[in-house]
Amino acid sequence: MIKVGIIGATGYAGAEIARILLGHPEAEVVWYGSKSYVGEEFSSIYGNFFKIIDDKCLDDNMEELANEVDVVFTATPQGLCASLINEDILGKVKVIDLSADFRLKDVTEYEKWYKIEHKAPSYIEEAVYGLCEINRDKVASARLVANPGCYTTCSILTAYPLVKEGLIDPDTLIIDALSGVTGAGRGAKVANLYCEVNESVKPYGVANHRHTPEIEEQLGYAAGKKLVLNFTPHLVPMNRGILATEYATLVKKDGKLPTAQDIRAAYEKYYGNEIFIRLLKDGVYPETRFVQGSNFVDIGFKVDERTGRVIMMGAIDNLVKGAAGQAVQNMNIMFGLDETMGLRIVPKCP
Amino acid sequence: MIKVGIIGATGYAGAEIARILLGHPEAEVVWYGSKSYVGEEFSSIYGNFFKIIDDKCLDDNMEELANEVDVVFTATPQGLCASLINEDILGKVKVIDLSADFRLKDVTEYEKWYKIEHKAPSYIEEAVYGLCEINRDKVASARLVANPGCYTTCSILTAYPLVKEGLIDPDTLIIDALSGVTGAGRGAKVANLYCEVNESVKPYGVANHRHTPEIEEQLGYAAGKKLVLNFTPHLVPMNRGILATEYATLVKKDGKLPTAQDIRAAYEKYYGNEIFIRLLKDGVYPETRFVQGSNFVDIGFKVDERTGRVIMMGAIDNLVKGAAGQAVQNMNIMFGLDETMGLRIVPKCP
Amino acid sequence: MIKVGIIGATGYAGAEIARILLGHPEAEVVWYGSKSYVGEEFSSIYGNFFKIIDDKCLDDNMEELANEVDVVFTATPQGLCASLINEDILGKVKVIDLSADFRLKDVTEYEKWYKIEHKAPSYIEEAVYGLCEINRDKVASARLVANPGCYTTCSILTAYPLVKEGLIDPDTLIIDALSGVTGAGRGAKVANLYCEVNESVKPYGVANHRHTPEIEEQLGYAAGKKLVLNFTPHLVPMNRGILATEYATLVKKDGKLPTAQDIRAAYEKYYGNEIFIRLLKDGVYPETRFVQGSNFVDIGFKVDERTGRVIMMGAIDNLVKGAAGQAVQNMNIMFGLDETMGLRIVPKCP
Amino acid sequence: MIKVGIIGATGYAGAEIARILLGHPEAEVVWYGSKSYVGEEFSSIYGNFFKIIDDKCLDDNMEELANEVDVVFTATPQGLCASLINEDILGKVKVIDLSADFRLKDVTEYEKWYKIEHKAPSYIEEAVYGLCEINRDKVASARLVANPGCYTTCSILTAYPLVKEGLIDPDTLIIDALSGVTGAGRGAKVANLYCEVNESVKPYGVANHRHTPEIEEQLGYAAGKKLVLNFTPHLVPMNRGILATEYATLVKKDGKLPTAQDIRAAYEKYYGNEIFIRLLKDGVYPETRFVQGSNFVDIGFKVDERTGRVIMMGAIDNLVKGAAGQAVQNMNIMFGLDETMGLRIVPKCP
Repeated sequence: MIKVGIIGATGYAGAEIARILLGHPEAEVVWYGSKSYVGEEFSSIYGNFFKIIDDKCLDDNMEELANEVDVVFTATPQGLCASLINEDILGKVKVIDLSADFRLKDVTEYEKWYKIEHKAPSYIEEAVYGLCEINRDKVASARLVANPGCYTTCSILTAYPLVKEGLIDPDTLIIDALSGVTGAGRGAKVANLYCEVNESVKPYGVANHRHTPEIEEQLGYAAGKKLVLNFTPHLVPMNRGILATEYATLVKKDGKLPTAQDIRAAYEKYYGNEIFIRLLKDGVYPETRFVQGSNFVDIGFKVDERTGRVIMMGAIDNLVKGAAGQAVQNMNIMFGLDETMGLRIVPKCP
Repeated sequence: MIKVGIIGATGYAGAEIARILLGHPEAEVVWYGSKSYVGEEFSSIYGNFFKIIDDKCLDDNMEELANEVDVVFTATPQGLCASLINEDILGKVKVIDLSADFRLKDVTEYEKWYKIEHKAPSYIEEAVYGLCEINRDKVASARLVANPGCYTTCSILTAYPLVKEGLIDPDTLIIDALSGVTGAGRGAKVANLYCEVNESVKPYGVANHRHTPEIEEQLGYAAGKKLVLNFTPHLVPMNRGILATEYATLVKKDGKLPTAQDIRAAYEKYYGNEIFIRLLKDGVYPETRFVQGSNFVDIGFKVDERTGRVIMMGAIDNLVKGAAGQAVQNMNIMFGLDETMGLRIVPKCP
Repeated sequence: MIKVGIIGATGYAGAEIARILLGHPEAEVVWYGSKSYVGEEFSSIYGNFFKIIDDKCLDDNMEELANEVDVVFTATPQGLCASLINEDILGKVKVIDLSADFRLKDVTEYEKWYKIEHKAPSYIEEAVYGLCEINRDKVASARLVANPGCYTTCSILTAYPLVKEGLIDPDTLIIDALSGVTGAGRGAKVANLYCEVNESVKPYGVANHRHTPEIEEQLGYAAGKKLVLNFTPHLVPMNRGILATEYATLVKKDGKLPTAQDIRAAYEKYYGNEIFIRLLKDGVYPETRFVQGSNFVDIGFKVDERTGRVIMMGAIDNLVKGAAGQAVQNMNIMFGLDETMGLRIVPKCP
Repeated sequence: MIKVGIIGATGYAGAEIARILLGHPEAEVVWYGSKSYVGEEFSSIYGNFFKIIDDKCLDDNMEELANEVDVVFTATPQGLCASLINEDILGKVKVIDLSADFRLKDVTEYEKWYKIEHKAPSYIEEAVYGLCEINRDKVASARLVANPGCYTTCSILTAYPLVKEGLIDPDTLIIDALSGVTGAGRGAKVANLYCEVNESVKPYGVANHRHTPEIEEQLGYAAGKKLVLNFTPHLVPMNRGILATEYATLVKKDGKLPTAQDIRAAYEKYYGNEIFIRLLKDGVYPETRFVQGSNFVDIGFKVDERTGRVIMMGAIDNLVKGAAGQAVQNMNIMFGLDETMGLRIVPKCP
């Protein structure tokens, strides 16, 4: 049985790791770390766990944790994981970081977009970007995994095969994304109050959202060259779910546009055997409700001959495939377990 | 492996049975019956099941079904199950009826409240009212189980121990209940359109909702006498969940009101060993989000010395403990399985 | 033109006063007071007012305000108005207090329920409880009006005629109420975050909500005797609206229950000429969406012969008739204007 | 006083015309036409109008209507207005058609996208496209106005000045739009039930939504050439509001990208004097809640030097500026009234 510690267990992503691991036969949480609720019962914060999780919250003590568990999930704000990590820690315990600290390979990019100094730049190189479907080989031997962002997971996976296969011009890529409010975290901010969010939608982080360089870096690897793109997130009044609608100009071959069959073949090539990626039927587009609570990525697309573009659409549950679920998927890979263990959760709808 | 047929599988309760049984190790659905979608893939209606359930919808053919399955769930409007049932059917297959057809023991009450003729009154006597925590012994040997209504499950279980122990005057009982919109079904009605329900609450069925006689009959058994009460349901803009807030005057003993400890002791007496009933701590009251997707009933209470009343509050997921979950719980009991099999679902929140 | 100052203008009730007064031909806001946003443009907080209100927020300076305006609305937490009021202030300016400071006539009750010391008990006697439809004569000559609470406005008006006429036994009165989330204010609290409130309902303040003594005091005047009752508020996922469902045992006359006609006659007697109270037709019950944004109180009822009770139901917009609208209505009365001036707002639905 | 008839008064757009005209000093509705509710009180369908509108619904009788009113609004499905219109009608009464029947100048485009035969093609030429801010001169003398679609109003106005001024390459234009559910109408369809829409977002009509040719035609006039673009609508769980996020590549002048100042100047040139278009400050982006219930169009933008694109964002209330409000604005222009009469509605938030 793998012993698990969660730093930041009382945030939405941390609590979702707890929920998922309750259904995992080979792992159990033994440390619910928290900054604000030390000594309180975990189930007094998340009443859904009443009579299911009896533990009290402990502090976010990485040193001690490293001695007691096999793997630590850090579900905390940017900067914390980088400030806690060192050779001693990584010698004792595997770390899966749900923050952005080790996602970008270029530390100057990190410091530019996040506006904080990176406290452990020497581990950036070693850290593996844990987008499981793309990087699972590297994840298998990693000590430190940078769990991808929610928007990025959805945005990258939705476009990856078409970029990789050269079917679209990566410089034309535009990503318009919608997110439920759990993506904003559980901090007490006026902007996230019910009455500020309900019955409205808004764009934010226009042309400067921090997930932009992460998407660009990863899709750049697929394209084989640097790229810049537009990414615009919007806040939508619902608890969970990310939908990415992505636009790109198709690359003609021999003067002809790729067909819907060509596009489908590319998706099938990369995702045909993936359990968690569901390529929808023609004419069917993803809806976030259909992945709710699950680790699925639902992907649909439409070739528009009129404009020569393809519209790619992907949906995930931001707390599962966009955070906790993918983190557990990474854990499974790192420990040599069946990658889907504990994660074959059936989406609940409505 | 128990073979299961669902009549009305494309309604919300039917689909929820399908969802729950995907996690049941000893039962599998082999017949997804539908009136409106015969021949269509089940997952084309509920996209959450895409690549999980491959079956197409079959018709609502009870005769044929009885030859092919071990148990039939009828998740259909009132009147249908009664019109389909007969000795031949019940000789071949167990039936768990999620409609109201066999819930009331007095056929004239049924016909008065439901305003339809009962087509199989001879089976009313035999049918067991499947409120598992109260009637599990009778359910164990039943051929035909009347699965309780959603409001009734919540309302009865919240008050039962106090009525049974004589701690409250049953003639003073007032039940004020709130329901999410799945309770209204999946029929295409203007009243249930998003924009008619959203951003509003309303009472309905005031003093004449059909769940009233069901609550009265069952609590009457507990009280040892007939009783009438007020039950007022309200529609609330959320998908799932029922909350019942119940008021009753406490019965003095030796001139003294029962204390909170007395009340708690009564709940503990009946529910202390129940897996699915969670008696909340003092000062904690149920919230529907904490039971979402699960078979739990969360119960809290408050003794008000000022008024001499107790306020009892219960919460369930109307589609699970209020319909599909309890139906599966009944199935487990009928087939001699662990009662909680497939039902230890952790509530998801948010 | 009446000059208006608002202390607490950036809260939901304060901003609603601003919205309403934009449509008032005889009053204009000249002071948008705020604790947190001094110096910021009011429309930078409430973007709906962009290019409509150009003012910047000023501080909550009662002294200076009293010299500059004709009437001050205090839309602030309990305790502030009482701490600011004095003879000098009241000599210069009329004050309409939206907090609870001057609602209860018994200062010990205030201090017991609110758990703070009252800083200006000498003004409690003078203050007029501004429930316009009941107290408009007294309001007309008041210097200091205690604007009623949101739950209380709805709860009292819904039951008042039946209590006053002795049609119901006031000791049996039970009030079960639902509120949208604006009622919880605009403070940055985890409990009011979108994802904590959405898709759930919960009771709170069970048997100890602070609006209880206010309802009891006012209905006690109507009953001609002290009374205690149960009041249970619930939080519902919507922005605006309060619905009160109230239960009471009917008082027989000559051995007969009052009929629906008797009940209607009582409502008509008190509200027949009231512009803002709409007595619904038989069989029609209030829905909060139908009063949204308006100063209306919609009232319906049902006589239940089975139980001998009447169920009374009322709906208001908590920010309008439950706060800002009634405050403006009080202002109109105090300044001798048509009581409905600026308040004939048509509810918007959906 | 202008006498108004509404055909389709019981749909959401029709009822919104009724709401707006209650605040219009020079117009009154004398005919509430309906297909489904003839003979019923209008306020029995929209309870918000109880004691405000006393009229009963009449039938959708254009012939008779033309004799009784000065202007007819047709708020009906495509095809109906075209089937009712003729020289006799237009000789007696002005017609403002909220359907798409007269929006497209090319009848073959209409029949291709709408898949119905046009019944009155001879009036297409005469009909004026009622986008007031662009076409008010033509509207002033029109007998027949084609009131623009909701998505189109928002999409066109958001991009118009930049297209007109040649600041963006129109062939790169991509419009990603979000709509509240009132946009789907009040028809009883499963897809629009509360539980099908709530807690989810979905794209629809991808690359074939009917508002596409309307946007292309109008922006084509601005560009001075034909253009094709991508338009993707999404359904969002809220009652009202449309947000359009639009992307286009900036056109360099003398090797330099236009600056934010250049963009702002273009918007100011066209909208500087427009009452209903609010150009937001730098760094502020539109949120649908801030235009709710009003006739405003809020527009913001961001120049992204990294990608050489501009992101334009616009928000409207789909039922007001996107339907009923603009229809009334057109009426005002047609009758020589102040264009804003009855339309200076302050947005309500929250």
